[in-house]
Amino acid sequence: MLQPELKLRRDKIRYLMAQQGIDAALIACNVNLLYTYGQIVSGYLYLPLHSPALLFVKRPNNLTGEYVFPIRKPEQMVDLLKENGLPMPAKLMLEGGELAYADYIRLAAIFPEAEVVNGTSIIREARSIKTPMEIELFRRSGIMHAKAYSKIPEVYRPGMTDCELSIEVERLMRRQGCLGIFRVFGQSMEIFMGSVLAGDNAAAPSPYDFALGGEGMDPSLPGGMNGTSLKEGYSVMVDIAGNFYGYMCDMSRVFSIGKLSDEAYAAHQVCLEVQEKIASVARPGVVCEDLYNIAVDVVAKAGFADKFMGVSQQARFVGHGIGLEINEAPVLAPRMKQELEPGMVFALEPKIVLPGTGPLGIENSWVVTENGIEKLTVCNEEIIKL
Amino acid sequence: MLQPELKLRRDKIRYLMAQQGIDAALIACNVNLLYTYGQIVSGYLYLPLHSPALLFVKRPNNLTGEYVFPIRKPEQMVDLLKENGLPMPAKLMLEGGELAYADYIRLAAIFPEAEVVNGTSIIREARSIKTPMEIELFRRSGIMHAKAYSKIPEVYRPGMTDCELSIEVERLMRRQGCLGIFRVFGQSMEIFMGSVLAGDNAAAPSPYDFALGGEGMDPSLPGGMNGTSLKEGYSVMVDIAGNFYGYMCDMSRVFSIGKLSDEAYAAHQVCLEVQEKIASVARPGVVCEDLYNIAVDVVAKAGFADKFMGVSQQARFVGHGIGLEINEAPVLAPRMKQELEPGMVFALEPKIVLPGTGPLGIENSWVVTENGIEKLTVCNEEIIKL
Repeated sequence: MLQPELKLRRDKIRYLMAQQGIDAALIACNVNLLYTYGQIVSGYLYLPLHSPALLFVKRPNNLTGEYVFPIRKPEQMVDLLKENGLPMPAKLMLEGGELAYADYIRLAAIFPEAEVVNGTSIIREARSIKTPMEIELFRRSGIMHAKAYSKIPEVYRPGMTDCELSIEVERLMRRQGCLGIFRVFGQSMEIFMGSVLAGDNAAAPSPYDFALGGEGMDPSLPGGMNGTSLKEGYSVMVDIAGNFYGYMCDMSRVFSIGKLSDEAYAAHQVCLEVQEKIASVARPGVVCEDLYNIAVDVVAKAGFADKFMGVSQQARFVGHGIGLEINEAPVLAPRMKQELEPGMVFALEPKIVLPGTGPLGIENSWVVTENGIEKLTVCNEEIIKL
Repeated sequence: MLQPELKLRRDKIRYLMAQQGIDAALIACNVNLLYTYGQIVSGYLYLPLHSPALLFVKRPNNLTGEYVFPIRKPEQMVDLLKENGLPMPAKLMLEGGELAYADYIRLAAIFPEAEVVNGTSIIREARSIKTPMEIELFRRSGIMHAKAYSKIPEVYRPGMTDCELSIEVERLMRRQGCLGIFRVFGQSMEIFMGSVLAGDNAAAPSPYDFALGGEGMDPSLPGGMNGTSLKEGYSVMVDIAGNFYGYMCDMSRVFSIGKLSDEAYAAHQVCLEVQEKIASVARPGVVCEDLYNIAVDVVAKAGFADKFMGVSQQARFVGHGIGLEINEAPVLAPRMKQELEPGMVFALEPKIVLPGTGPLGIENSWVVTENGIEKLTVCNEEIIKL
């Protein structure tokens, strides 16, 4: 990756470090190394406030450069910092929301004189405002994502289960260039490539905090498809992540097996209306919670409040930031006072679940521009009959 | 899951807790909840040494039972423990090798009187000896895994890239019932469903500590396939994980595009010889390091030492425990003094990389029995010409 891009990203972090009097960051987690170094290594990026970053690397063994130092264990970093004329940090930040406790303690012990603080929120704040290059990668992802989805009707066969359809959509996505891997912040949420939900399975509560649940195929992965046969009158929602270049593009579309009930088409239109209304007011300075409240108002007036974002267990958000991970800032949810800023990228996913039919609604990825928001995943939004 | 199975697993953990004077464990991480509660929840299993375990659950909202308590936040656990007549723990273990630092600190603060210790190694030790039911799930996984692999020649088409072949093998595995998700202990190693390596890409060093590397398709996932065209004279190794029931069955097979060099067939036979020799001596009481040394001896005598487990960057192990995660105990590696015990399950993967040809060798999953080891992944082990 080009040095100016990396410098831009590092300086976004440094700016926030300076506000808290932090004079160095030690970055060890994969997504944050990808963000600040442009590639994943087994090692550490040491980012001082006022001098160039140093990479201490265990693997791969073929990296070279003025600021690259091979190590076998993290304790070697102290001597290498001294040899490079760098002072020991007075206030050091580690990724306390991501590093395992034992790893955090080991790294903190290397700098016994330093005050060590949790820097995860700083890095996440920096990452929440995408650079022009990151937005460009999202733009390309959106195009690839839409291309793969446009072929879904071609791979459907009557008599399929949700699982069989999912496997074919996964293949479409992979052939379009999707890397497959699904990155989530925190370790409590797990999913394979995304979810395909049909019929009443869309209402099944799951332990994971995704927009909808689903029973899953096995207790070891309790979310998403459960082997439901795709029957006349069922809706099917495809929500497979579009990670083409490391960025988690997010998009859902609804398909129908034959014709659905009138109520189903009405519910779908309500979700499109939520999307339209939010898209018409969202711009820098708008408060996230207000966008969530717009969604709830529209849905409640239409009489679908008790089926919005699930039935027996309802998700309490209508959108979430996306980036290297699927769950970044901002979150469009109650009590979220954060304001939209140019460069934020988020998924907006108003969804309604109708018992006896299945999931309805829409999800697109959006980037916040100077005076509004722009859709990155452009593709037919009506219910497509299979 | 049946209560006797769960009690067996919990008592394995309790036995190790008692040895260290730990009177309660608080289990919060998904794989450990799956192990001790039989399903994944968003919540906590509180496991006292001398009384039944209590489940505190945030999601899903449809769990009920004598020992199940809905909560919104972990701090509610204290009052619920008191209401159930349980004393506060004097020495409490948390998953310090898995929980994020910030989560560990929050949970520890709920029990200010307790001495809090890192219990990850205890749980991993308990999990390393599989129960008869876990071994049965591995047995079934091995059969499914082999069935999917047996169809690989049917999906090969001349002119494919490694990526195109991988996508078809992924589909075979998924259609056989593979859940797709790849669970790894720790957060430094990432992979999609596994790897397909062909030609010189097999020698490319990666940041991840898998047996072989590979450049990857994008800097955001630097391992495995890189778009190599499958050409006459190349070998291709398929190493896609067989997670059918939550257990990470592990198996690699080598295919050839046309005919390979004589050296390639010789290298492959050396790996089979390593496998045979280890299988003939491995049994309870044998030291892991000794098995690694057998592999190195056989390979060195055959003149392939500098190409064993990679070329420019060589992995320093020849086998690893498998279970709910791909990297469990035991590890067959230098300085590993651990002895094999009945009920351990491990992958044995002697592999050689030949520049100009690609990867050779074998990987199977094995269970340690009372008097030897038994192969779980039974399938043609020769190089299969595509």
